[in-house]
Amino acid sequence: MSQTNVQRPLTTLQKNTKKKVTVRLKNEVEYKGKMDNVDSYMNLIMTNAEEIQSSKVVGKYGRIIVRGNNVLFIKLENEL
Amino acid sequence: MSQTNVQRPLTTLQKNTKKKVTVRLKNEVEYKGKMDNVDSYMNLIMTNAEEIQSSKVVGKYGRIIVRGNNVLFIKLENEL
Amino acid sequence: MSQTNVQRPLTTLQKNTKKKVTVRLKNEVEYKGKMDNVDSYMNLIMTNAEEIQSSKVVGKYGRIIVRGNNVLFIKLENEL
Amino acid sequence: MSQTNVQRPLTTLQKNTKKKVTVRLKNEVEYKGKMDNVDSYMNLIMTNAEEIQSSKVVGKYGRIIVRGNNVLFIKLENEL
Amino acid sequence: MSQTNVQRPLTTLQKNTKKKVTVRLKNEVEYKGKMDNVDSYMNLIMTNAEEIQSSKVVGKYGRIIVRGNNVLFIKLENEL
Amino acid sequence: MSQTNVQRPLTTLQKNTKKKVTVRLKNEVEYKGKMDNVDSYMNLIMTNAEEIQSSKVVGKYGRIIVRGNNVLFIKLENEL
Amino acid sequence: MSQTNVQRPLTTLQKNTKKKVTVRLKNEVEYKGKMDNVDSYMNLIMTNAEEIQSSKVVGKYGRIIVRGNNVLFIKLENEL
Repeated sequence: MSQTNVQRPLTTLQKNTKKKVTVRLKNEVEYKGKMDNVDSYMNLIMTNAEEIQSSKVVGKYGRIIVRGNNVLFIKLENEL
Repeated sequence: MSQTNVQRPLTTLQKNTKKKVTVRLKNEVEYKGKMDNVDSYMNLIMTNAEEIQSSKVVGKYGRIIVRGNNVLFIKLENEL
Repeated sequence: MSQTNVQRPLTTLQKNTKKKVTVRLKNEVEYKGKMDNVDSYMNLIMTNAEEIQSSKVVGKYGRIIVRGNNVLFIKLENEL
Repeated sequence: MSQTNVQRPLTTLQKNTKKKVTVRLKNEVEYKGKMDNVDSYMNLIMTNAEEIQSSKVVGKYGRIIVRGNNVLFIKLENEL
Repeated sequence: MSQTNVQRPLTTLQKNTKKKVTVRLKNEVEYKGKMDNVDSYMNLIMTNAEEIQSSKVVGKYGRIIVRGNNVLFIKLENEL
Repeated sequence: MSQTNVQRPLTTLQKNTKKKVTVRLKNEVEYKGKMDNVDSYMNLIMTNAEEIQSSKVVGKYGRIIVRGNNVLFIKLENEL
Repeated sequence: MSQTNVQRPLTTLQKNTKKKVTVRLKNEVEYKGKMDNVDSYMNLIMTNAEEIQSSKVVGKYGRIIVRGNNVLFIKLENEL
């Protein structure tokens, strides 16, 4: 697939490092914090992350590395 | 498989970027919005997406990146 | 495996594009319609597809792209 | 692994095309019919296949293409 | 990993073709019989195999090809 | 993705070997101890690890090698 | 990732062949015995292995080959 003036999903992700995101995992738990970095597999480093289950904060983490294969989707928080 | 005058599924997907789609994930939740981009793994960026469960809108997202391996199917909304 | 005068499964699939098929997914839901195209991963485009659960039509789709890894089997409808 | 005078499993499968087999899938459903062809991924074409659940025939198919990753095992019917 | 005078697991498996084994699959069902051949993916041909569930023989097969990804472990029966 | 002055997740992990981490697996069990080493697949060696279920210590291990595909996330304990 | 004076997890595993380990699989069953060999996929040969469920010995095996993808973790028994 030739892609010229459109951004691939992974490029968009990469451009949003250092910004706030919410990552929902396949087990329905969410992590909301700064996405310090992310690679093409969607492994990501999150800092100052809140762990959210059923809309409640159930944990806080200084820095976690999430394994990419668990990711359902990543919400960019600086929008909408 | 030689493919000449027919379009492969991923090419069709690519041609429908910037259009409205509904993405159903394996967990039965749907995301309806503009497909801003998509790659060959079916990772996709959706903007102004409604999250739909059992036909009810349960969330709204400015921009999300969905990990492709969760996708069940993608419905092109500009048809039928 | 050398294959001379027999057709591989993916070649047979490819030869049946534009024909009617029923695709059963791992979640037991079926999609019956025209298989507009298919690739070697079994990603497929279906048009005018009926969604069937427990033998009942529960949805209709103008055009959907099904992610191949969800496929259980594909039935060629022009036979038997 | 060097293999000289023994047959690899996929070679044995290939030699049994056009013969009757029963394919059991991971979901415990079985398909009994002629294995028209099979590839190295165990994708297979079956013709005149009976669908069997709990020892009862619950469906019949003229021709189906089964996606290999669903296969639990394939029984060669011309033996025992 | 350099391996000199020790045998890799797949080499050991290969050396035990034509011997009696019990294969336990992830679904807890076991197949006990002669391992006619096996490849590096652990696809295997078994002949004169008994199907065992909860210690009871529930089926017999002349020859089956088991898809390797279903294997939990393979017990070499000529030992202990 | 070109990455210049930011650290990829796996590089960050690597820089934290010999430090204390908590590894949460997909089955919700956690292992807290020193991360003696880790590779790009997230296989990791942990020493003096406590096994934690529902916030209770249920086991202790001198040294374990965790297979990377089971990892949900890794928390760096020297932070927050 | 450059790794100089630290050992990768798979190298550590390899160095512990011929030693006693306990392997916990994803289905929570454990196998305790001598790890006769292991490869980079974590396929492993165990000899004189006890099968342990809920802390009880439920089976004994002279020699088994465990398929690596089932492994949760491997505990080195000569430590702690």
